[in-house]
Amino acid sequence: MTTPAISRYPVPDLADLSDDIRARMLEVQEKAGFIPNVFLALAHRPDEFRAFFAYHDALMLRDSGLTKAEREMIVVAVAGANDCLYCFIAHGAILRVYAKNPLVADQVGVNYREADITPRQRAMLAFALKVADRSAEIDEDDYAALRSHGFDDEDIWDIGNISAFFCLSNRMANLITLRPNDEFYLLGRVPKPK
Amino acid sequence: MTTPAISRYPVPDLADLSDDIRARMLEVQEKAGFIPNVFLALAHRPDEFRAFFAYHDALMLRDSGLTKAEREMIVVAVAGANDCLYCFIAHGAILRVYAKNPLVADQVGVNYREADITPRQRAMLAFALKVADRSAEIDEDDYAALRSHGFDDEDIWDIGNISAFFCLSNRMANLITLRPNDEFYLLGRVPKPK
Amino acid sequence: MTTPAISRYPVPDLADLSDDIRARMLEVQEKAGFIPNVFLALAHRPDEFRAFFAYHDALMLRDSGLTKAEREMIVVAVAGANDCLYCFIAHGAILRVYAKNPLVADQVGVNYREADITPRQRAMLAFALKVADRSAEIDEDDYAALRSHGFDDEDIWDIGNISAFFCLSNRMANLITLRPNDEFYLLGRVPKPK
Amino acid sequence: MTTPAISRYPVPDLADLSDDIRARMLEVQEKAGFIPNVFLALAHRPDEFRAFFAYHDALMLRDSGLTKAEREMIVVAVAGANDCLYCFIAHGAILRVYAKNPLVADQVGVNYREADITPRQRAMLAFALKVADRSAEIDEDDYAALRSHGFDDEDIWDIGNISAFFCLSNRMANLITLRPNDEFYLLGRVPKPK
Amino acid sequence: MTTPAISRYPVPDLADLSDDIRARMLEVQEKAGFIPNVFLALAHRPDEFRAFFAYHDALMLRDSGLTKAEREMIVVAVAGANDCLYCFIAHGAILRVYAKNPLVADQVGVNYREADITPRQRAMLAFALKVADRSAEIDEDDYAALRSHGFDDEDIWDIGNISAFFCLSNRMANLITLRPNDEFYLLGRVPKPK
Amino acid sequence: MTTPAISRYPVPDLADLSDDIRARMLEVQEKAGFIPNVFLALAHRPDEFRAFFAYHDALMLRDSGLTKAEREMIVVAVAGANDCLYCFIAHGAILRVYAKNPLVADQVGVNYREADITPRQRAMLAFALKVADRSAEIDEDDYAALRSHGFDDEDIWDIGNISAFFCLSNRMANLITLRPNDEFYLLGRVPKPK
Repeated sequence: MTTPAISRYPVPDLADLSDDIRARMLEVQEKAGFIPNVFLALAHRPDEFRAFFAYHDALMLRDSGLTKAEREMIVVAVAGANDCLYCFIAHGAILRVYAKNPLVADQVGVNYREADITPRQRAMLAFALKVADRSAEIDEDDYAALRSHGFDDEDIWDIGNISAFFCLSNRMANLITLRPNDEFYLLGRVPKPK
Repeated sequence: MTTPAISRYPVPDLADLSDDIRARMLEVQEKAGFIPNVFLALAHRPDEFRAFFAYHDALMLRDSGLTKAEREMIVVAVAGANDCLYCFIAHGAILRVYAKNPLVADQVGVNYREADITPRQRAMLAFALKVADRSAEIDEDDYAALRSHGFDDEDIWDIGNISAFFCLSNRMANLITLRPNDEFYLLGRVPKPK
Repeated sequence: MTTPAISRYPVPDLADLSDDIRARMLEVQEKAGFIPNVFLALAHRPDEFRAFFAYHDALMLRDSGLTKAEREMIVVAVAGANDCLYCFIAHGAILRVYAKNPLVADQVGVNYREADITPRQRAMLAFALKVADRSAEIDEDDYAALRSHGFDDEDIWDIGNISAFFCLSNRMANLITLRPNDEFYLLGRVPKPK
Repeated sequence: MTTPAISRYPVPDLADLSDDIRARMLEVQEKAGFIPNVFLALAHRPDEFRAFFAYHDALMLRDSGLTKAEREMIVVAVAGANDCLYCFIAHGAILRVYAKNPLVADQVGVNYREADITPRQRAMLAFALKVADRSAEIDEDDYAALRSHGFDDEDIWDIGNISAFFCLSNRMANLITLRPNDEFYLLGRVPKPK
Repeated sequence: MTTPAISRYPVPDLADLSDDIRARMLEVQEKAGFIPNVFLALAHRPDEFRAFFAYHDALMLRDSGLTKAEREMIVVAVAGANDCLYCFIAHGAILRVYAKNPLVADQVGVNYREADITPRQRAMLAFALKVADRSAEIDEDDYAALRSHGFDDEDIWDIGNISAFFCLSNRMANLITLRPNDEFYLLGRVPKPK
Repeated sequence: MTTPAISRYPVPDLADLSDDIRARMLEVQEKAGFIPNVFLALAHRPDEFRAFFAYHDALMLRDSGLTKAEREMIVVAVAGANDCLYCFIAHGAILRVYAKNPLVADQVGVNYREADITPRQRAMLAFALKVADRSAEIDEDDYAALRSHGFDDEDIWDIGNISAFFCLSNRMANLITLRPNDEFYLLGRVPKPK
């Protein structure tokens, strides 16, 4: 079931995993129908696995001024900037599902300026990409631009921290040549079979 | 005691923190003599604080083929590449202490090619910076180069993940304009007062 | 039927087009089931339309040491490098159809190094991207590397000229904000309905 | 007369060319006094030759809000950005002739900001270079800036398409190491001998 | 005393130097307590030594609208941009001494945007870095921005020429792997011993 | 005679100059037939003028393993990399004269890889451009590559220092918008009139 080809590193058997890690995998499998490879590959390092997903959940599941779809837009745009195949494909799928829009993930991943999104969302992605590419140059003008679109400072923290977290995630995926599950490519492009 | 100037965001009072977070701060204060500002600033988001330091500890405290000084070298070189003042200064201090060398942090942070380090360490830093700057281009040749210096695949994961984690950390520090404690600038440059 | 939103520029009615241009459109519509927007948008300038598609056909339809799928791989990889939404999506669809592979277009467009392609194809794409990004630095070593993978000089011309032609095409699409037809996003991802 | 050194690829004899291609060459030879090497080198691929020059003529000979000298300014500035020796030299000569100005080609090719041109022409070249270097970032502000200098949307298409076409041309010239004819270097620098 | 390790090139004995060069060294030794390695290393080429320090003094000692500490800020910021270890360390020390501030050199060298300096000084450093990184793009707007902070045109020349001179100096130091004296690392960080 | 348009800064009258500076100008005028604008513009700052030309002469007139034409090739290639109009034009002229070759300056300035020069000269220019663009990355391999072409370490110092010096010069010319004398454009392109 798990195959070495999904990562340069050994992928543990579910049977050998700690209970909490296996439980997390079964939970996502229950929901998605399959275990995304990032879970299997990062389980090679259980402590890092736990910290990684704790960080992920703290950002992606918290109450926020950003919708879940908007948070996934950030992930996909940053994956495009970092040429990260895993996150482009896997989070592209999640974005399509959350946004109920089969086109937006590819648009945002390739060139957000031409995506079917609002001006507010474009400003959000411009900032997320500045965090990814030139964070040392962030200044008061960037904050002001986002506030003019109705984002408050907690929203700005969310945008920035999601971008920063996936800058970590993209680099890890590239480091281990993490392979996206085939299922992701089609997810959210066609109506869910009943 | 805590002042707004260490971050763009509100810094909570120690009295208002959860016990586990306050305990972590008091522990580091006990050891270092002061609370590094990254603890105070990230406590604004307790769940992210916990995940951040769990990730940090998983990487920086684990048994590894890399010494603690070598891990801090990676942090400082990556901070230099990302123009991150906080990590350059704070981890520069930690590196000086671990390496018992007052010069190496500045050398590694400005231009690791001219630092007083071994060829093995230079190869380690070259790879760490590739993870930071061009992770999508990592390929089998990079792994082979590191192995020729005696690193095994677990060491390579460590190098890569430390670089990736501080790519997150540097971006967060730049996002919130995190100010290094004044104490860090001198730490490890002069013999510790008795 | 034609809508302004597919281009910043006016899109002519089929009825107003010259016979040769309309014929070309009807031919592709017959085959694809719809008229790709690049035909409609470039028809704003009939002479450039004719030259553009003559150039396209000269490169993409000629007998060549490159398969049609390989030629489309070049197009998609170059579109990714140039952040060109239209070519990424439209030629991604064509690549999926030619390669009979629903995954390869996204792989090649985001990071060809991790695509399910042969080492020869990876060398081909590395060269195509050098033509796109740093053509002034092409030298004898690049030719030698391609020859070692079995490409002859005519193949190398093909790789280079396809990359160069789509550097033109990507820039035009970005200039006029050319919108991909919705149909392309799903094409080649699921078995063709009978 | 034709020598291999003008291209990495074989250069056909005039005698072996199709009539239309030879006629085109003789026409330009009649006018210029010599056959520019781009004609000889591209004749290696007759269909691409025909499409290339059809595209060239559609852009460079059409009625336009841009003078012929202005169109050549775009070509020379783009050649400078792409480090394309052939177009810098050959179109530099043409620009000097059209502008009746022996200095402007070198100025525009090296740094258009210091050239003896109008502010309107500087805005034109700034946009042409954005098309060449960062076309994905073109937005409404760029169009507005050009309109404020009196360019209409058809002029903007011309600027953009000329830049895009020579991004193709520059890459082909670099790919085949196309050598400028010696005659171009001096053309337009001294009064034409009678 | 002088050791080969401070430069890739031979370092002359003081005894073998021309009187004027030796006198200059003894003068700086008298003041600083040691001879900075740049003097020893550049003495390998006496004529270049003389011109280098004549240029240095003309810029750094002249009456100017910039304080000496401000001039050293430019040097340190440019050294950071050029990854020049020697100038980062040596001029960082001089800046700390002139500014009587143990923190400012590291701040300016790593990321001037977060340094404890005035908005006027930040504008000065932004311009100095534009001279270092993109001098061809300097235009009237840059001059206007500096004038709005109270700099006159002679000050702007000073900022630009100091940046340009250390672009030379940084490249020479990198070329010869010039090693900073160990003394510089601590200078200006602790009160001078009496 | 001297006009403000050659520099953003005031250009002094010859009558007001110190004797040594005026003498230098008259000497070059005697030889060249005109006073190159760099002399006039830099005379605005006499001490910097003296140091600049002392440095220039130390590098460009010394006995060296590099011919004078080779030294000018470095200058022109670096001017191309820095988009410096003055040095591209003025030193292009000097290169044509020294090399007795009307083509080589434009070739080297636009793309040295396609210039009519020896492999040894191409290696020299590759290194000069590395000094100009990425001096922090210079390492032992660069030295070895040059030695394999017969350069000794003093030659390498010359190559590097000439590149570094004109990195200063290019930035100053760009800073003050230094205008090349019209005479330079044609110099060395046609046989000298008797």
